[in-house]
Amino acid sequence: MHIAIPLYAGYDAMDALGPYFVLRNIPGATVTFVAERPGVIPDEEVTLTATASFADVPRPDVVVVPGTRDVKQSILDEALIHYVKTAHATTTWTTSVCVGSLALGAAGLLEGVRATTHWVAHDLLVQFGAQPVDERFVQDGKIITSAGVLAGIDMALHLASLLAGEDMAMAIQLGLEYAPQPPFNAGTPKTAPEEITAFVRSVLRPA
Amino acid sequence: MHIAIPLYAGYDAMDALGPYFVLRNIPGATVTFVAERPGVIPDEEVTLTATASFADVPRPDVVVVPGTRDVKQSILDEALIHYVKTAHATTTWTTSVCVGSLALGAAGLLEGVRATTHWVAHDLLVQFGAQPVDERFVQDGKIITSAGVLAGIDMALHLASLLAGEDMAMAIQLGLEYAPQPPFNAGTPKTAPEEITAFVRSVLRPA
Repeated sequence: MHIAIPLYAGYDAMDALGPYFVLRNIPGATVTFVAERPGVIPDEEVTLTATASFADVPRPDVVVVPGTRDVKQSILDEALIHYVKTAHATTTWTTSVCVGSLALGAAGLLEGVRATTHWVAHDLLVQFGAQPVDERFVQDGKIITSAGVLAGIDMALHLASLLAGEDMAMAIQLGLEYAPQPPFNAGTPKTAPEEITAFVRSVLRPA
Repeated sequence: MHIAIPLYAGYDAMDALGPYFVLRNIPGATVTFVAERPGVIPDEEVTLTATASFADVPRPDVVVVPGTRDVKQSILDEALIHYVKTAHATTTWTTSVCVGSLALGAAGLLEGVRATTHWVAHDLLVQFGAQPVDERFVQDGKIITSAGVLAGIDMALHLASLLAGEDMAMAIQLGLEYAPQPPFNAGTPKTAPEEITAFVRSVLRPA
């Protein structure tokens, strides 16, 4: 089973790594960072290495598209969009983390599809014909999109259960000691103080 | 403000990256991966780059020691232990993720200290005179230890609030959309099915 995580200019490393550290524990699964050309792909500060090109892994069983720090950047990457579109034809699951769902949209995969993304970018889904849904992750057909950044871990555990069964997904969760207890209840605009939400929105989507 | 995350042979990249992606958002904070010698430090599959040596950052304000996949490996790394011990003399906060707390113990910092670690390694804390505590993270004096792997994210948000205030910690949480909804309730042995716990224990601490 081959799981491809495409990297591209501007990708957010945490979006890629959350699912990576879940999915790499699936027995028999190979998780590969792929890019237009193999090599070191810098995020802002962390660098990940793509060990294969898009052309080397044309028909992965699963694609996990990470988002970007600049919310619209993935839409502009033609090589990424082309890869997502062609790989989707034969995937078992096509998935995204955070604003990676916008790349799925740009590839034409979200027409009429229930989907989600980082809360700051929900409005951008509509242009691709998607039906924005305010959930942690959304499965519609073989497309699974997740909310912002760390929602990718929840999505990946669900994906692990689809790929390897619930027992294996629970074992992975236990190995990672994923029994979250955030010290604050500010992880979504539904619970965060209004002024905090306004501040974060202004940072992530400057006018 | 300088936050040092020491890397060493066998370190677990997720232990380092969870706190990294939280703490790098603190205004005015510099987060540096340090190692005995600068350069690429491979985890099993992901590689991170230490941009400074231990000697380059002798007096960080904060140290965050990641754990290892092989639970006892950090204890054996003399350069790491020496760094943790000497840095601790002048830190504001000395912290660890997962079995990184064993390195704090080996450095002699946990004598009589309430501390935690990955659930699979709790018994190993006692040899260092620590008082093992079954909590997500534990603050005792200026030492903050966290439970396994992803507990490092919860600990780092708490640390962010200590360093930059609760509003900034909440803003970081909201930016990462950290409103966790694991699809299973198996993140600790307290809630996981017994046979799953036995399986994971056998993988992480083979007899």
